[in-house]
Amino acid sequence: MTDLLAEMKRVKARVDGLILNQLLPESSSIKEVGLLYRMMRDYPMRQAKGMRPFLCVTTCRAAGGKEDDALLTAACIELFQNWILIHDDIEDGSELRRGEPALHRKYGDALALNAGDALHARTWEAILLNGRSLGLERTFAVMEEFSHMVNETTEGQHMELGWVVGKRWDLSEKDYYEMCTRKTSWYTVASPCRLGALVAGSRGGMLDQLREFGISLGIAFQIQDDCLNLAGDQKKYGKAKSDDILEGKRTLILLHLLAVASQGEMDRVISIMNKKRESKSADDVSYVMSLIDKYDAIGFARKRATELMKEALFTLRGIDWKGDRDAAEMLTSFARFAVEREW
Amino acid sequence: MTDLLAEMKRVKARVDGLILNQLLPESSSIKEVGLLYRMMRDYPMRQAKGMRPFLCVTTCRAAGGKEDDALLTAACIELFQNWILIHDDIEDGSELRRGEPALHRKYGDALALNAGDALHARTWEAILLNGRSLGLERTFAVMEEFSHMVNETTEGQHMELGWVVGKRWDLSEKDYYEMCTRKTSWYTVASPCRLGALVAGSRGGMLDQLREFGISLGIAFQIQDDCLNLAGDQKKYGKAKSDDILEGKRTLILLHLLAVASQGEMDRVISIMNKKRESKSADDVSYVMSLIDKYDAIGFARKRATELMKEALFTLRGIDWKGDRDAAEMLTSFARFAVEREW
Repeated sequence: MTDLLAEMKRVKARVDGLILNQLLPESSSIKEVGLLYRMMRDYPMRQAKGMRPFLCVTTCRAAGGKEDDALLTAACIELFQNWILIHDDIEDGSELRRGEPALHRKYGDALALNAGDALHARTWEAILLNGRSLGLERTFAVMEEFSHMVNETTEGQHMELGWVVGKRWDLSEKDYYEMCTRKTSWYTVASPCRLGALVAGSRGGMLDQLREFGISLGIAFQIQDDCLNLAGDQKKYGKAKSDDILEGKRTLILLHLLAVASQGEMDRVISIMNKKRESKSADDVSYVMSLIDKYDAIGFARKRATELMKEALFTLRGIDWKGDRDAAEMLTSFARFAVEREW
Repeated sequence: MTDLLAEMKRVKARVDGLILNQLLPESSSIKEVGLLYRMMRDYPMRQAKGMRPFLCVTTCRAAGGKEDDALLTAACIELFQNWILIHDDIEDGSELRRGEPALHRKYGDALALNAGDALHARTWEAILLNGRSLGLERTFAVMEEFSHMVNETTEGQHMELGWVVGKRWDLSEKDYYEMCTRKTSWYTVASPCRLGALVAGSRGGMLDQLREFGISLGIAFQIQDDCLNLAGDQKKYGKAKSDDILEGKRTLILLHLLAVASQGEMDRVISIMNKKRESKSADDVSYVMSLIDKYDAIGFARKRATELMKEALFTLRGIDWKGDRDAAEMLTSFARFAVEREW
């Protein structure tokens, strides 16, 4: 695991250089625009794991490509992650991100929303730069994957927000997986891996296997994220504890709780979850948390995450890598990390 | 002028078909996602002038290209316009868009913000489709122009929002032009024309001339928009009357008023403009409007718009068109329409 963390850190440092280079305030002649660039650089400069660039670069190497060829695409995935987080924080009304106030808490919703759009545009600008080194055809394949990834992510985000706005609780475990596949799996695991493979020139079967790997592991990753939100160490995790309860999120933990709780408990949980964030009291949160403990809903979710991780590992073992064996091995370590991490 | 309007309508109808085709809800297997597609189709289905697709297609023809080759790119400009309007309406807290409630008033901020992102992603997806018909190289040139256009627009949007948030009124006519160039000129005139020319295969000098034409005419267009916001017929115009005063916008009209008003009038106008939207009374708005009348600030702005339109026409006359002369003539009519329109 130490190797994995060191490797993630190494790749992140390389990618960060590219990202910050892409967001230089000097590129505008107008003084006022300086703040926009500071805002775009804000999230990228906060502490982060750098999982997605790691997955892109490592898959590229495992598939027989060169790390240097994948760096720019890896940076673009990180740029994507940063703009979507800015918007996600506005949509969810989140307070904290990576241990600091969310961007819209620092600058207001309007400027933050626009900074997210600016960063979205910069993502595409950076992808286009690939044209020079990868050639037009391979760059096109990268862009098509990116486009698919953004579509999936916004659909998943819509499903989750729509459930909250529509006060929907008639949801199954399967609904949760469908939502997670779109909201999390594509941009967290499937596309980063597939983009690395595309840069390496892979086509066909391997891309299907990476999709399958990515979807299972992405859901497992999200379940672990939900567990950490409720039961993790806030300092390590970097988001406000129990935020998911305040935001009314339909996590697997909550859905399982509703499936096993008594009618009275269920009614009270739903009425609490349907309240607006600012109307939820500390007692409300404690009550929901006490039931989560009573029914060991986190234990249930962790079990599911482990099963999904094992499915992902099974798929991974089936891939016929053409490149660096160490890199392929590192992907196995990553799959374990995704559900065992505490941050 | 009748010819121009008929031609804009004709092009818009062709482009609308492509846009709605790109946003088919059936492309998702998940029922909940249907609403996302309805939201993405909402603004595109409202009445609109279709100026930008017209400029793209007409410039392509004037530059010697085929209309059919430019249609998809024209549709992408319209897709871009629609997502940026969704976000712009959230940022400004606007009530109406094209005569109906703004998207966030219908569905709430969170879902509307995400629908804007989804539409942004669809814009790039649609641009990529150009690869098949235009070839990779020309499609790349189109994408680079698009990327530049989004960067300019988000920078301009940042300037304008930053002035409101920072309560800045120490602004000159030049500051206003700088902001308008970025916020309006690029995506309204310069890029639609340049994209048409790029599709036709133009390079070099003509693109510079179209930038110059687009910047002057775009500012003139925005000034006329500001005038209509305060003095237009709301039914024709489709936005809430005097919204710019409620939103605290730094229009040329307001900046001129502040430059010529007495100290006492200036102080009162600034204190009104700095109030939050919901704290502005009808009397506040009437007071500002009475001073605008007193100093004929709208007359001043209209004069500037006419001057800028003439500069744009001068640049346009210098272009050595290789293609359809009627199309080139139509661009001249459009320039006049941009400042003479009542909607």
